[in-house]
Amino acid sequence: MALPNLQIALDNSSLSEALKSISLAGPVVDIVEAGTILCLQSGMEAVRCLRALYPEKIIVADTKCADAGGTVAQNCREAGADWMTVICCATLPTMKAALKEIEELQVELYGDWTFQQAQQWLNAGITQAIYHQSRDALLAGETWGKKDLEKLRKLIEMGFKVSVTGGLTKDSLALFKELDVYTFITGRGITGAADPNLAAKEFKAEIQRIWG
Amino acid sequence: MALPNLQIALDNSSLSEALKSISLAGPVVDIVEAGTILCLQSGMEAVRCLRALYPEKIIVADTKCADAGGTVAQNCREAGADWMTVICCATLPTMKAALKEIEELQVELYGDWTFQQAQQWLNAGITQAIYHQSRDALLAGETWGKKDLEKLRKLIEMGFKVSVTGGLTKDSLALFKELDVYTFITGRGITGAADPNLAAKEFKAEIQRIWG
Repeated sequence: MALPNLQIALDNSSLSEALKSISLAGPVVDIVEAGTILCLQSGMEAVRCLRALYPEKIIVADTKCADAGGTVAQNCREAGADWMTVICCATLPTMKAALKEIEELQVELYGDWTFQQAQQWLNAGITQAIYHQSRDALLAGETWGKKDLEKLRKLIEMGFKVSVTGGLTKDSLALFKELDVYTFITGRGITGAADPNLAAKEFKAEIQRIWG
Repeated sequence: MALPNLQIALDNSSLSEALKSISLAGPVVDIVEAGTILCLQSGMEAVRCLRALYPEKIIVADTKCADAGGTVAQNCREAGADWMTVICCATLPTMKAALKEIEELQVELYGDWTFQQAQQWLNAGITQAIYHQSRDALLAGETWGKKDLEKLRKLIEMGFKVSVTGGLTKDSLALFKELDVYTFITGRGITGAADPNLAAKEFKAEIQRIWG
């Protein structure tokens, strides 16, 4: 199995806080994400700042786009994003319109999506999916379980590059050890640590230990 | 039946363009929406500007929130929004978290939502839903049909205040004449007109003619 990427999600409510978070962990991570909260607060200026600071990294705009895919994707690309996200309940025309404007599209899996839909996304040329535990669901006490791991396995077998996110800690990565995970995404797992640089390095070391 | 509201959706890719659009039609419409494209481009500064210009109007932040409902809603409220939108495939905990932070929440209906889910939203205290034709679906040739009108009727009978949007023209309002529509939302139906002020007045006059 390939070594999973480490992606930092910047879900701060201000650009300056986001830049403070990333300034410490940025050199360590593979992918830098302008989270939805940040995009909605600071707009595409957030993506422009991240692109300015990290010209060589993959930058993701986590727009969770549900409509007007072409325009949103064009705006993300022009701001410097390599990838963007669409929500799974967006229509196929929305996803196709977005895919024309940006390098790669990631489908965010929330709620009651089906594998039949997932096959349609693949058929449309979409290669990435993001499997979540919703932040609010986690706060409501839900957690990773066997059902999640089975769905993940199936998505990977279908051919998706699958990112995993939601309440991940260094210690929880081992839950996924049998799976060819493409990327682990964490926000506060790094940004909320006393030493974000060390926290990012520990995530990387654990990924290396399990998948290396 | 009550007179439906007229809502303008500002889906411009820049704040200055949005302000140009609204400066002409603003005095006529009932509700001003910072569209998703605009929110993602300019962040909550767009909502702050609209609140500054229209202190007495209802302002909607069309975030189509899918996660982190509490934080997104708090940010919208702090920027001056009265209402915000959540996407229908968000989890119930996300919706409930958002509802705690903002006056009213609107569920945006995209993809395969069910009436069973809709009942759960009502039970959670959510009173508004937005029934769409996706912009991209419209571009792909789809249009309003009997199936849409039946779903609309059922949502209204369930107790939702339902907004209708997607490719509306003044002449298409009559399609909905049997229904107690809460709000008609249009973007380019007004902003794309040669005279946006006149276009908004014509929408209002047609609403008055049919529902008055």
